[in-house]
Amino acid sequence: MCEANVYLINDEGEERLFMDSVDKIVPDSNKLHLENIFGQSKTVRARIKEMTLVDHRIIIEKLVDG
Amino acid sequence: MCEANVYLINDEGEERLFMDSVDKIVPDSNKLHLENIFGQSKTVRARIKEMTLVDHRIIIEKLVDG
Repeated sequence: MCEANVYLINDEGEERLFMDSVDKIVPDSNKLHLENIFGQSKTVRARIKEMTLVDHRIIIEKLVDG
Repeated sequence: MCEANVYLINDEGEERLFMDSVDKIVPDSNKLHLENIFGQSKTVRARIKEMTLVDHRIIIEKLVDG
């Protein structure tokens, strides 16, 4: 299975696990809709910063308001 | 290996393979930098529309100018 773990960069610049085993990502204007292989979903006001699929890693960062 | 195939939606709304075996994607303002497991890279003026990692599918679409 090729799901990935999604890490959100926090205010200190550290990567924190936001959601594991993510299968589906749908960007929508300033949001990301995430869905994992267990059928759980999350929406977050963020953008994709970088993905390395072979490492199962997706880094996202919060969008500042405005 | 969990690389994915990246499909670009063309002007007719059809998905065409743009790059296979993609490992790394780095969005950068209005562009996407793609790199595959063979070390090849491409940059395209596009955005991610949807990803289903378990299916190894990433759909991107061109950005209209402006």
